[in-house]
Amino acid sequence: MGEFELIRRYFCTEALQPTRRDVYLGVGDDCALISVPQGRQLALSVDTSTAGVHFLPQACAHSIGWRALAVSLSDLAAMGAQPAWFTLALSLPEVDESWLAEFSRGMSDLAQRYGIALVGGDTTRGELSVTVQVQGYISPGTAWKRSGARPDDLIYVSGTLGDAAVGLKLAQQRLAADLPLPQAPPGQPDDVARQISQDEAFLLSRYLYPEPRFDLLSVLSSRASAAIDISDGLVADLKHLLTASNVGARIDVSRIPLSDAIRKLGDDKALSFALGGGDDYQLCFTVSPQRRLELEVSAEQSGIALYPIGVITRERGIHGLSSHEIQGYDHFKGAGR
Amino acid sequence: MGEFELIRRYFCTEALQPTRRDVYLGVGDDCALISVPQGRQLALSVDTSTAGVHFLPQACAHSIGWRALAVSLSDLAAMGAQPAWFTLALSLPEVDESWLAEFSRGMSDLAQRYGIALVGGDTTRGELSVTVQVQGYISPGTAWKRSGARPDDLIYVSGTLGDAAVGLKLAQQRLAADLPLPQAPPGQPDDVARQISQDEAFLLSRYLYPEPRFDLLSVLSSRASAAIDISDGLVADLKHLLTASNVGARIDVSRIPLSDAIRKLGDDKALSFALGGGDDYQLCFTVSPQRRLELEVSAEQSGIALYPIGVITRERGIHGLSSHEIQGYDHFKGAGR
Repeated sequence: MGEFELIRRYFCTEALQPTRRDVYLGVGDDCALISVPQGRQLALSVDTSTAGVHFLPQACAHSIGWRALAVSLSDLAAMGAQPAWFTLALSLPEVDESWLAEFSRGMSDLAQRYGIALVGGDTTRGELSVTVQVQGYISPGTAWKRSGARPDDLIYVSGTLGDAAVGLKLAQQRLAADLPLPQAPPGQPDDVARQISQDEAFLLSRYLYPEPRFDLLSVLSSRASAAIDISDGLVADLKHLLTASNVGARIDVSRIPLSDAIRKLGDDKALSFALGGGDDYQLCFTVSPQRRLELEVSAEQSGIALYPIGVITRERGIHGLSSHEIQGYDHFKGAGR
Repeated sequence: MGEFELIRRYFCTEALQPTRRDVYLGVGDDCALISVPQGRQLALSVDTSTAGVHFLPQACAHSIGWRALAVSLSDLAAMGAQPAWFTLALSLPEVDESWLAEFSRGMSDLAQRYGIALVGGDTTRGELSVTVQVQGYISPGTAWKRSGARPDDLIYVSGTLGDAAVGLKLAQQRLAADLPLPQAPPGQPDDVARQISQDEAFLLSRYLYPEPRFDLLSVLSSRASAAIDISDGLVADLKHLLTASNVGARIDVSRIPLSDAIRKLGDDKALSFALGGGDDYQLCFTVSPQRRLELEVSAEQSGIALYPIGVITRERGIHGLSSHEIQGYDHFKGAGR
């Protein structure tokens, strides 16, 4: 397999291994060595993306690399941590150099935005699977835990929901019809993205190129009482937050933000994707009523849209959705899972 | 799959999650939060063990759990770092509760020796594969890098070599003959280990239950100039060290330590396993001539056997072995790889 050569060629690049003061020793020895800045805690999260379970194996390697890193980074964003460095355990059925080059480019396109460094990794032969562990820094006591929500806190989401789930369906339809998928992140349309409708390009990119919401860090900073990223769908992830906080929620379904692109499916269908569809990687977070104004002023100054969708209640469970609706959305996992 | 319930039942145990002062928040939120002790660097390493490539899928889950953690920990030991905490990304083809219980017990049996904590993880459906990332602490400037060897430094290994490679062969033979494998670490023989010869039990346990050599930390401390753990075989791993240090080596083959158990195969065969066989997880390290006496006195006081096998040379390559021999052992990867 030539593991060492592989690692060197595609992962020991300047784009993936920028010079960082905290990285004392990176890839290439038995261990990486890191000097965590004084007065900062380390936040970390590990996620495995497996072909056919968590991503479309036929998608371009550029999106697979981007997405595997984005999914892990989103956990740092959900905790309020600044991304710093990551490791990659890559399992490949065969060595396809052009695939590896694109995968590495997708990963580094995202990594470079935050100046984060790949400090260690392992490549093995096996079914296509990508495990990324991300590490970030956070000031002690400032993390947005899932357990911090209190009755009367407002519940917000950070963007339109359901787009990625619809994007996944569109991607599956295109692949079934032997049509190519876009191979570039939003804002950098490629030939494929230029040949399809704007709506379709938007929805596909929301699935293929999720954006971890680090832009929210300074706005939410000490204001959020709890947060979680929406990877499995609003209902499923909000439930984790409510369970950890020992509270319930009342949701105003009409306030759940829907993009124009998915509204065209009809409001009911769009809402169904928004409540139960995963892969959006928006944040769902809570803020005490006392902090609400401060938060919304800060968001407006930063040009960031936030959407209040409900309120935390003492009474357990999610209300405002009929129980029939909750039942239906509960274990929805997006087509293809 | 009931991912959350699974994780709770088998991995959120006291044995795997002991209370540690540095672990501010463990498994269960978007991220784990760690307070790295002041004045210490973080050392980390990630390794994937895949069924059929890195371990025998038919081996007992207790050994698979132990071994996956041991293999990663060995990288910390090779750097001179104290183990602290780890994460686990586990991919499973199906949920077999008794397998999971044994796997978790094997992992915690080893973890408990060092008081290390599982702080995060991910379980996914896929072919059986275990990715472990270990983290440890080390004082800045004290790590034994691969690149630290200098001409005239002595080359040592920390124990007999080749045992695990022979153990793997024996394990394969037993499985082919439908015979069970031992299911307990050395020192705790089970029924199987009691029914076979001492030699066979020793060799099997060297493959199934490797021991990361943290007992060497205080002896080598500031004395080693470079180190690597022997996972792929002495020749292959020594080469990594020599390349990183830009030096060569002269090895006295007759000084390579061989166990009585593998000597019974005949000296030539035993030596072949010792030079090319992997999976021993002994350390290979270098020490300057000035520090040699100090090292050997310290080792003797600690009751630890160290074996000088050669010397670092300015001239590149490994000498003392004929080039024919080196060729032969170069890409030997142990049967079954």
